[in-house]
Amino acid sequence: MRKVILASGNKGKLKELQEILNDLPFELIPQPKTVEYEVEETGTTFIENAIIKARHAAQLSGMPAIADDSGLVIDALNGEPGIKTARYAGFGCTPQDNMDLILAKLKPFDDKNQRKATFVCALVYMRSANDPLPVIAVGQWHGAITREKHGDAGFGYDPVFWDFNYKMTAAQMPKELKTQLSHRGKACRKLEKKLKKIWDK
Amino acid sequence: MRKVILASGNKGKLKELQEILNDLPFELIPQPKTVEYEVEETGTTFIENAIIKARHAAQLSGMPAIADDSGLVIDALNGEPGIKTARYAGFGCTPQDNMDLILAKLKPFDDKNQRKATFVCALVYMRSANDPLPVIAVGQWHGAITREKHGDAGFGYDPVFWDFNYKMTAAQMPKELKTQLSHRGKACRKLEKKLKKIWDK
Repeated sequence: MRKVILASGNKGKLKELQEILNDLPFELIPQPKTVEYEVEETGTTFIENAIIKARHAAQLSGMPAIADDSGLVIDALNGEPGIKTARYAGFGCTPQDNMDLILAKLKPFDDKNQRKATFVCALVYMRSANDPLPVIAVGQWHGAITREKHGDAGFGYDPVFWDFNYKMTAAQMPKELKTQLSHRGKACRKLEKKLKKIWDK
Repeated sequence: MRKVILASGNKGKLKELQEILNDLPFELIPQPKTVEYEVEETGTTFIENAIIKARHAAQLSGMPAIADDSGLVIDALNGEPGIKTARYAGFGCTPQDNMDLILAKLKPFDDKNQRKATFVCALVYMRSANDPLPVIAVGQWHGAITREKHGDAGFGYDPVFWDFNYKMTAAQMPKELKTQLSHRGKACRKLEKKLKKIWDK
């Protein structure tokens, strides 16, 4: 079976991708946790950073590579935290710090419609480091930022991300529901569909 | 009406985009032909290079920007000429030089199925230079490289790009048919659909 390297050391991501992509004829291998596999994310968009990570892993390993980049885009904050989602409150900050910062910045906005936000996940599959046309799948989850934290499941900004249809935050959802709605779930399923098409040809 | 800058000095592209996007509520303006608007395309993928051009134009102009990057991907040549499509035979080369080079490289491959090729167009719309989630539309045209040039319409590699359904090269097609089938036509129509969705919200 062909091997594909996952350009992430994150075990949670590996498991989620493996679960969703397990119908496809390849084995997903996490990249080694060595310094040489770290790469500076110099892009200003999710897609560029996912490509940068996939290319780097493909280059070093000689295998096809999958990478993701994801984050939160808040309309009222001009798209922030965007690609700085994980480090919005500064280097070494916690998810609590990040949530506190966006809650503070959104204080002037009362209505949920003024507090609209989108979770974004960009997934990239590169056949090789010089593949000019990577397969790209972007998943989005539209919602709003609450005024306080609710729920304790999930991670990151989940306790302040409100889903309009289910009237709860991402951190209040059962895991299955979150996978169905989430940006990462959607991106994974889109990628699966696109890869199937390629390999069925 | 909102103004959007087109990150290309190419009049043909401007006209084609204006024709297809003319239902949308914006005026497409070509970028000035000054040195400051030139930018180095440092990406290794079509999408990265389109983002680089759009970001640069948005940064300088303060307007939203549209950019494209396009080229030819040949399976048997490992994806070449890819992002080097316009300059495959070297700096200052002509379309004739480029076609001669790929015909020479593909000599060992007899069958059209071994000579499969895809024309690709990546179109990007950025709301601003720091937009983390540009709108992206990729159009593809699948075909094969002929053994000789046929036809004299179109430009670039059109005389050697064979369409399996219509059994002629891109350079033998009436303009309307080419716009319907072509990578650029498809990308434009996809972009139009995506932008409509955003602005109808």
